[in-house]
Amino acid sequence: MSDYQAFQVELKGSIAHVQINRPEKVNAMNAAFWTEIIEIFQWIDETDAVRVVVLSGAGKHFSAGIDLMLLASVANEMGKDVGRNARLLRRKILQMQASFTAVDQCRKPVLAAIQGYCLGGAIDLIAACDMRYAAADAQFSIKEIDMGMAADVGTLQRLPRIIGDGMLRELAYTGRMVAADEARTIGLVNRVYSDHQALLDGVMAIADEIAGKSPIAIAGTKRMISYMRDHSVDDGLEYVATWNAAMLQSSDLRLAMAAHMTKQKPEFVD
Amino acid sequence: MSDYQAFQVELKGSIAHVQINRPEKVNAMNAAFWTEIIEIFQWIDETDAVRVVVLSGAGKHFSAGIDLMLLASVANEMGKDVGRNARLLRRKILQMQASFTAVDQCRKPVLAAIQGYCLGGAIDLIAACDMRYAAADAQFSIKEIDMGMAADVGTLQRLPRIIGDGMLRELAYTGRMVAADEARTIGLVNRVYSDHQALLDGVMAIADEIAGKSPIAIAGTKRMISYMRDHSVDDGLEYVATWNAAMLQSSDLRLAMAAHMTKQKPEFVD
Amino acid sequence: MSDYQAFQVELKGSIAHVQINRPEKVNAMNAAFWTEIIEIFQWIDETDAVRVVVLSGAGKHFSAGIDLMLLASVANEMGKDVGRNARLLRRKILQMQASFTAVDQCRKPVLAAIQGYCLGGAIDLIAACDMRYAAADAQFSIKEIDMGMAADVGTLQRLPRIIGDGMLRELAYTGRMVAADEARTIGLVNRVYSDHQALLDGVMAIADEIAGKSPIAIAGTKRMISYMRDHSVDDGLEYVATWNAAMLQSSDLRLAMAAHMTKQKPEFVD
Amino acid sequence: MSDYQAFQVELKGSIAHVQINRPEKVNAMNAAFWTEIIEIFQWIDETDAVRVVVLSGAGKHFSAGIDLMLLASVANEMGKDVGRNARLLRRKILQMQASFTAVDQCRKPVLAAIQGYCLGGAIDLIAACDMRYAAADAQFSIKEIDMGMAADVGTLQRLPRIIGDGMLRELAYTGRMVAADEARTIGLVNRVYSDHQALLDGVMAIADEIAGKSPIAIAGTKRMISYMRDHSVDDGLEYVATWNAAMLQSSDLRLAMAAHMTKQKPEFVD
Amino acid sequence: MSDYQAFQVELKGSIAHVQINRPEKVNAMNAAFWTEIIEIFQWIDETDAVRVVVLSGAGKHFSAGIDLMLLASVANEMGKDVGRNARLLRRKILQMQASFTAVDQCRKPVLAAIQGYCLGGAIDLIAACDMRYAAADAQFSIKEIDMGMAADVGTLQRLPRIIGDGMLRELAYTGRMVAADEARTIGLVNRVYSDHQALLDGVMAIADEIAGKSPIAIAGTKRMISYMRDHSVDDGLEYVATWNAAMLQSSDLRLAMAAHMTKQKPEFVD
Amino acid sequence: MSDYQAFQVELKGSIAHVQINRPEKVNAMNAAFWTEIIEIFQWIDETDAVRVVVLSGAGKHFSAGIDLMLLASVANEMGKDVGRNARLLRRKILQMQASFTAVDQCRKPVLAAIQGYCLGGAIDLIAACDMRYAAADAQFSIKEIDMGMAADVGTLQRLPRIIGDGMLRELAYTGRMVAADEARTIGLVNRVYSDHQALLDGVMAIADEIAGKSPIAIAGTKRMISYMRDHSVDDGLEYVATWNAAMLQSSDLRLAMAAHMTKQKPEFVD
Repeated sequence: MSDYQAFQVELKGSIAHVQINRPEKVNAMNAAFWTEIIEIFQWIDETDAVRVVVLSGAGKHFSAGIDLMLLASVANEMGKDVGRNARLLRRKILQMQASFTAVDQCRKPVLAAIQGYCLGGAIDLIAACDMRYAAADAQFSIKEIDMGMAADVGTLQRLPRIIGDGMLRELAYTGRMVAADEARTIGLVNRVYSDHQALLDGVMAIADEIAGKSPIAIAGTKRMISYMRDHSVDDGLEYVATWNAAMLQSSDLRLAMAAHMTKQKPEFVD
Repeated sequence: MSDYQAFQVELKGSIAHVQINRPEKVNAMNAAFWTEIIEIFQWIDETDAVRVVVLSGAGKHFSAGIDLMLLASVANEMGKDVGRNARLLRRKILQMQASFTAVDQCRKPVLAAIQGYCLGGAIDLIAACDMRYAAADAQFSIKEIDMGMAADVGTLQRLPRIIGDGMLRELAYTGRMVAADEARTIGLVNRVYSDHQALLDGVMAIADEIAGKSPIAIAGTKRMISYMRDHSVDDGLEYVATWNAAMLQSSDLRLAMAAHMTKQKPEFVD
Repeated sequence: MSDYQAFQVELKGSIAHVQINRPEKVNAMNAAFWTEIIEIFQWIDETDAVRVVVLSGAGKHFSAGIDLMLLASVANEMGKDVGRNARLLRRKILQMQASFTAVDQCRKPVLAAIQGYCLGGAIDLIAACDMRYAAADAQFSIKEIDMGMAADVGTLQRLPRIIGDGMLRELAYTGRMVAADEARTIGLVNRVYSDHQALLDGVMAIADEIAGKSPIAIAGTKRMISYMRDHSVDDGLEYVATWNAAMLQSSDLRLAMAAHMTKQKPEFVD
Repeated sequence: MSDYQAFQVELKGSIAHVQINRPEKVNAMNAAFWTEIIEIFQWIDETDAVRVVVLSGAGKHFSAGIDLMLLASVANEMGKDVGRNARLLRRKILQMQASFTAVDQCRKPVLAAIQGYCLGGAIDLIAACDMRYAAADAQFSIKEIDMGMAADVGTLQRLPRIIGDGMLRELAYTGRMVAADEARTIGLVNRVYSDHQALLDGVMAIADEIAGKSPIAIAGTKRMISYMRDHSVDDGLEYVATWNAAMLQSSDLRLAMAAHMTKQKPEFVD
Repeated sequence: MSDYQAFQVELKGSIAHVQINRPEKVNAMNAAFWTEIIEIFQWIDETDAVRVVVLSGAGKHFSAGIDLMLLASVANEMGKDVGRNARLLRRKILQMQASFTAVDQCRKPVLAAIQGYCLGGAIDLIAACDMRYAAADAQFSIKEIDMGMAADVGTLQRLPRIIGDGMLRELAYTGRMVAADEARTIGLVNRVYSDHQALLDGVMAIADEIAGKSPIAIAGTKRMISYMRDHSVDDGLEYVATWNAAMLQSSDLRLAMAAHMTKQKPEFVD
Repeated sequence: MSDYQAFQVELKGSIAHVQINRPEKVNAMNAAFWTEIIEIFQWIDETDAVRVVVLSGAGKHFSAGIDLMLLASVANEMGKDVGRNARLLRRKILQMQASFTAVDQCRKPVLAAIQGYCLGGAIDLIAACDMRYAAADAQFSIKEIDMGMAADVGTLQRLPRIIGDGMLRELAYTGRMVAADEARTIGLVNRVYSDHQALLDGVMAIADEIAGKSPIAIAGTKRMISYMRDHSVDDGLEYVATWNAAMLQSSDLRLAMAAHMTKQKPEFVD
């Protein structure tokens, strides 16, 4: 793990704790953020010793979204020709999307722990995570609408599969604040914890549970669920049959079965 | 705005209030209804001054669905050859579907305000709206099953993305009545208001909030969410990048940013 | 109806009651189970007199999932070459999937009534049913993760359309038990009944309600909702228009209309 | 048939002959062209007496593509805001696409007869027809590249299904002229006739042959082939089964069978 | 291999020779044909000793398509209610489609050898094969149009991927005869042989060549090409990566490599 | 342009000439090849001064495909657990696929110039290019089948859109050599040149022609054609309308129009 400007990353047992670490800026997403997150998740993806990821924000808030300084610097790169500006903007957006796609396509489950503000780009980010958990003081807003733009790094693409279409439209058109309890009701978060510490403890406990499972089984399960966002039931069935044709030959099944018989907890290789 | 037989249409500021206006017939959808709704939404689509739409029903009920007289007149057009009858019926159904597709594909958000009965074809209609809000006395039923037919103007196509698949099947197979509170629980409506007036006031307030946003940003947001009903996450990301390549060059971003700095409400051009 | 080893099948009026009948083995799914379920649903599909299906488990539990003896016998068939083993496993998995696809694609609605344990393969099974109802003592777990494998006979393919993506991932990664009430909250079951008898009575009543509708209309409604899991709204609209081009020429519409006029209950032919 | 500015339309038996009729402007596609073509094909679609369509160009050339005057007038409508200009342009392009989609989705087969120049927008047009036939002097060019733009009314969307991907790219990137013989070799046209008169005679003969078939069977065949451009084999099989469930009940089959037995030519109702 | 009424099946080394064997009826497809073909291809699929299939027709012609007696018997099953007739017809068509889907989805390559007439349903059949080879006297016609119906057992679904869209439409609308040479030019057959014996010898030689390859590699190659008819390039790439994750662990690679080094022909296990 | 081990890269005007440069190894694709090709095409993609790419092979042959030393080194990384080996292999294949996806998704047209052998992986590579041109001595073979494996870096995914399905299967199952003339007939290459020098001159001339067009228009055209491999006609039409909403505001259109009027060759900015 290298040193990062926008993040702090720790490996606790098999759990990588990835913390956005610019609390003095409400964890706003600056240029470093967007490139470092790719490096971090590439490392996670390639490192078999990491089995699960907790993503959180340092300080009182999860994140206020994109850093406005970054937007300003993009504006400065633009020239006179609308077509060439469009070419430049399209590339920039695709690059920023790739940062969150790295989170989405990470082979290990990613659990987001959210306290305080979770605004704009921060919603795009947590929508790319596997599960979301909140402290009671969490506040969510699809803030992009108030910046005069349609959200373009994942919120509008990934959230429809997570919360209801009808409520998503209300939140995306109005940008209104959603408190932790409503977030749980509409399915945006799985559980609400009383405060920040209880949130971190709770999420770490779930992560620990997952870290104890067969990493081969977890990887397969994640790939299948992600695959189903965009494929038919028939396609999904054939895909899992092909996947498991190899994976059921792993020794993890025998290990799990033996542990099941002896009522012991199995220890799986990374 | 021309005069309509089945509707009353008003422009209140930037809000088009479209009211089904046959209260003496429980707002049943007659021949005029199906053609006029296309004209109305075409006008809304082309008129930049309209930024948001409220769709409601005059009188005690939202609507009892398709007018049985209309069904009878279609039956009269049929001849002896089953194949040619099928050709005729297929065309008629496609035409009626086009009426609600005009609502669905309208570039501006459409908010449905529902009191009393909302039956059969009326469910198909509100499923084509962006958001749904109900008065406490609202009652919903997928009535088509009791007419001996599968619903064919949108309910079965659009509702799965809005409410759970399991509950949808129960409602579609049994045609049972759903009260306002259950409708909110299953995600069919976003909020329940105490009575008809509170409903209209509440929906108008939300519409007003949306009307104050950048119309460029709202149009993009709506297109993206609708697009995601039928496309993969990757397709959606590329599409919004291409869309925003043009739209982020709009002056609305600068306006929004300036307003944000000065804590003022921005005034966007239509 | 032949005799079955793993099932008991009864025809009550127009309702086929299909009961998994190995209570002494917690209704574990053995070799007979996987082949007989195909025969049973083929018979249901071809028999017009059956209009709706209730699927339940004999004894205190719905089912503990796949029989471990069956897994062991597959393991015994494997040889030395990884490629040929993969070919064998892929075929086996596809065959087992076909057993639940027979439930999924059955032309009549299938209602699952669940008490006690519903584990592993039993979740795959109920995910292939139209609706799910539970007794208060029901307990659900995506148990496959604890056997060192990704679920591969339907849970990961069909459940995302039924419960929220975020909660599904938590349940699939951790395998934790879900009680009846939480199952209702997340949309996994439609209703919770106080005990086993109340469950059976309640589900039979719903089945009876559905059996009274036009079988032509029910079949069309089911096909359309299933179709929408995997197709675009536009595709769905065109498909239902083509379907109804034939089906609206059925006499069931006239029958339903006449009954509606005379306030009587229509009697539809099978 | 009304009077048209850009077209001449004749009904010869069951064949509608639609002729682009601005020979003095090399049949360039002006404003009238784009709106009239929709009206004409709507009339064709609704008129059962029309069974097949021949589309040709008056004079020495088929068409030189879009009228540059029309492009200039669109340019004049543009204002200062890039976002609002994009909104306007997107709408205009969608409108023009709708003109050729009317040809593509016409329920009757459309045969294009091409002599002389077939440039730019004219390629987009013939790509929306069912079949293409050329005179020996025909010359094809995807001219848009030389106007500084990507073709946007159908060529790039429909041509990949008709000619090879590799050759399409060469033609679209270079805009080079393709003579009639090469057009036949790469599958762009089905046959080359020695001159303009032979072309018209030949195409009329094929149209006549098609006009003698069952219109129910022809409509089904066309819908299925068009459907397969965008759907899986499995989807296509299910769709045709549903379609034919109605259409095989038509009396045309008995008529065809009887004619087959008696070696006579069957006479089908429109 | 059991005895069949409509077929003769021989196993020559690793090649299954499946011959339609009703030469006195021009190999017309009767009731036995449609059920036996499923059994035959199920046997082929499950029998590892069969590595490749040659499909041919006994006598002077490949096949005249569906037996008209069979159509008549379906007609006799129909009742008075259009809806219930549609239900019956849809089922029958789906069943007949399943017969050719068994050919299409067979895990081993299927080579069609065609002489004389290949009409109507026979085109549907060869479109479900991997490759097609013809004798010089072969004649092809999409005959269904002359029976007053749209082809519904695979021609319109599978042929667009094999021959050009433009020419397919001409053949499907007119039903005109296509000779062997034109069939090769448009890609319907891969090669034309001088006469029937040369055809059988040539096709057997190709089959023999294929039978000598690794059956693991052949099965993967076939699945991937079939998969690509209906999936995106990205989906296909991921699928083959998952497939080969197991299959590259087969010993066939080492065997092939060793044979390559020693310039010998490798001998692969079934 | 850095120094590469496996390539030589030159910028000639606006044309990047990328040459595989291991002639002493028949341009076999070693480890350096697979990583360098990504860097090269990333540089091309980001460098506006490059407008078109020519891809060729140094020496007498284009390329013999993957270097067998590389395969051996992957085999060495494998351990005992089949599941973990599958995880490793899947990752490796996805990485190698990414190398050719970089070619496929490059924003500039890529023209392959092929002489001598083009075997195995080399077919996967040219299938990812826009167009293919051959010298008379070129020889093509889908060689993977003789290595006991299904091709897995693009041939089976991309070739079906380029050559006919029927012929592709023959070539993929048999691995037989295809000479230049047959390659042209089946659409694998666009043109055959008499010898290696004529090939390079001819391809450079086409590249030069393309380099003179508007780079904005070329990029749009390429994106649209690639998009159509995997999307419906309707999706493609909407996408190009959205794309051109920005790009038609570029000054290249005015420039092209002005040049057209004055019969001069326009000079477009990069």
